[in-house]
Amino acid sequence: MSVSDPVENLKTLIRCPSVTPAEGGALSALEAMLSPLGFRVERMVATEPGMPDIENLYARLSTEGPHLMFAGHTDVVPVGDEASWSHPPFSAEIEDGEMFGRGAVDMKGGIACFVAAVARHIEEHGAPKGSISFLITGDEEGPAVNGTDKLLKWAAEKGERWDACLVGEPTNPDVLGDMIKIGRRGSVSGKVTVFGVQGHAAYPHLADNPVRGLLPLASALMDPPFDAGTPEFPASNLEVTSVDVGNPATNVIPAKAAFSFNIRFNDTWTAETVRAEILRRLDAAAAEDTLRPGRDPIRYEMVWAERPSHVFLTRNNALISSLSGAVEKVTGRTPQLSTTGGTSDARFIKDYCPVVEFGLVGQTMHMIDERVALADLETLTQIYGTFLSRWFGDATLP
Amino acid sequence: MSVSDPVENLKTLIRCPSVTPAEGGALSALEAMLSPLGFRVERMVATEPGMPDIENLYARLSTEGPHLMFAGHTDVVPVGDEASWSHPPFSAEIEDGEMFGRGAVDMKGGIACFVAAVARHIEEHGAPKGSISFLITGDEEGPAVNGTDKLLKWAAEKGERWDACLVGEPTNPDVLGDMIKIGRRGSVSGKVTVFGVQGHAAYPHLADNPVRGLLPLASALMDPPFDAGTPEFPASNLEVTSVDVGNPATNVIPAKAAFSFNIRFNDTWTAETVRAEILRRLDAAAAEDTLRPGRDPIRYEMVWAERPSHVFLTRNNALISSLSGAVEKVTGRTPQLSTTGGTSDARFIKDYCPVVEFGLVGQTMHMIDERVALADLETLTQIYGTFLSRWFGDATLP
Repeated sequence: MSVSDPVENLKTLIRCPSVTPAEGGALSALEAMLSPLGFRVERMVATEPGMPDIENLYARLSTEGPHLMFAGHTDVVPVGDEASWSHPPFSAEIEDGEMFGRGAVDMKGGIACFVAAVARHIEEHGAPKGSISFLITGDEEGPAVNGTDKLLKWAAEKGERWDACLVGEPTNPDVLGDMIKIGRRGSVSGKVTVFGVQGHAAYPHLADNPVRGLLPLASALMDPPFDAGTPEFPASNLEVTSVDVGNPATNVIPAKAAFSFNIRFNDTWTAETVRAEILRRLDAAAAEDTLRPGRDPIRYEMVWAERPSHVFLTRNNALISSLSGAVEKVTGRTPQLSTTGGTSDARFIKDYCPVVEFGLVGQTMHMIDERVALADLETLTQIYGTFLSRWFGDATLP
Repeated sequence: MSVSDPVENLKTLIRCPSVTPAEGGALSALEAMLSPLGFRVERMVATEPGMPDIENLYARLSTEGPHLMFAGHTDVVPVGDEASWSHPPFSAEIEDGEMFGRGAVDMKGGIACFVAAVARHIEEHGAPKGSISFLITGDEEGPAVNGTDKLLKWAAEKGERWDACLVGEPTNPDVLGDMIKIGRRGSVSGKVTVFGVQGHAAYPHLADNPVRGLLPLASALMDPPFDAGTPEFPASNLEVTSVDVGNPATNVIPAKAAFSFNIRFNDTWTAETVRAEILRRLDAAAAEDTLRPGRDPIRYEMVWAERPSHVFLTRNNALISSLSGAVEKVTGRTPQLSTTGGTSDARFIKDYCPVVEFGLVGQTMHMIDERVALADLETLTQIYGTFLSRWFGDATLP
């Protein structure tokens, strides 16, 4: 069976119910597509105490350089209210030129297209002048502990080295060809608990309201802005995402108050310098202590969320221009080179090789009735194919 | 049976399990004490849709003027963990000169002493030169909707008028004779909800974080202070008692954020002017909008808690000096004339006549092992008796 048709490939993948952490048959289906193309396929199960085991896949075609990695995931987010779907979420039914199903755009569709592009490339040009590998995890939509990070380490320890990576996540806001991601901001989260002394609201001098400590601390993290942005990046931005005291009695001053925050930071900062700046702001606000004149210093505790996401920016012109050129050649659009949006597994890959991201249109991702236009699958396959030819420097540009 | 012994009176009252809203036999026991003394006792059941009916009691001796009211409540707060009590909370057991039981000081003890004081006064001096009434509710520790407020209206509609009132709540922080309450601050509570637009923390421009609106609004209510206090009152004080967003996801900007507050205000303000000042501060902070530059104005909603407590200050010298003089005569202490602490039912009574508060030592009120020294019961009975003589201007001062 040929795997040069992305529609057929995606149909197969959607029908595997691979909601994180379940493999759901998706990696086996991918293995069955890649092996006949000549890929050496390996499965790697990652484990972590207290977490479900996760199946991952690494497949490589050829052993020559240069070496191009395609990275992505077959796990999908839950379907939500299944009864609300127009078509069952794991049936891959087609209606009016669109295929419905969880993972259609995020990102089984990207995988289906890249497999088809590789198959067509081999059919048309023979084996590429170098290596292609698939690095596919089953833990991108979950905690991402047993996924790309461990799979990369595992492969690198076996001697794998890569020259460039394309992540197939949906990157286009509206139309295929809109946007390539060439970097991502970093992300740091934390929770600050301010301690006070509980008491009756009518006797404030016998109590110490922690909300009086919390308000200036939380404000200091959001004002002033951390920076104004760079040519490549939007401004770093911190949001206090929750404040929680949970005191139901209006005549009681509570014993403690807490807030949570998240900052998305550009390459003006590292996770380390951004954490230091946050602590500097908290200490400065605690010293000023505007709402508690004459009291003992504000007592607070910071708990950082595990594992910050590090910022990255890809400056590899060969990678960016062959992808951008392919998009322009096939769609006629000049894609925006963007660093906006959330984090992705590219934050792990950037430690091994230059990485860019390009895939389908993301509008329906994570939603009821996630779906992809069949025409987009064909167009993305052509973009990926043109990119392969350009990146490997094949003589016969299409 | 004589009711001139406060210890026996209190024993009887504690043995009635009158946790709000239960009458528990306590008002019937009081009726049985007052009727033989010549009081005309009436029971009044107050009702409110959606709330339990509450029994109240009004009793008057004589129809002459001047008319002195003694006000209080026989309902008590729940016992908490009954197993933690040294003696069962409704058994009135005595150990080492102390009687244990829920309501011992708050405030069956005060009632027991005033009954004994009236009985002794009649025994020693005959009927007082005027009227004495008991206005006793069963809804002081509860929502106070079916209690003193309605009982006063009911009695006033029947033509009752009073010249002065003594509330028998526990007013002494440490030792009997410490403190008379001659006023109370008012209390206003409310909840402010700030509305934003939910979104992903990585796309803050597509969202509108309500926490950015909440922080300056909440701060503006606590700073600057409302006033510096008056000769009779401590400073008005506002505390933000809770802040609640309840957003568990650090990558999500929440849709709304709310905070609750309570202000205790002195007679610089009325409930109306304090509410107006709160709204003025919120509007000023919303206009300044320090954490959301360039955004649409902060949208917020204020919900006031039902029924503010109004401030009052008693300036009736005859009432204050006869009580203060009685305390000094019996205990040798000059009681502080205070307006500190929370609200009491005196906030209702002040609309009908001058009102002061004096009772037992409050240290164990609402606690496990609430208890009263038998010596304090005797001393308070003597203070009440001396006060009766002085207030009615009896010739034979003890």
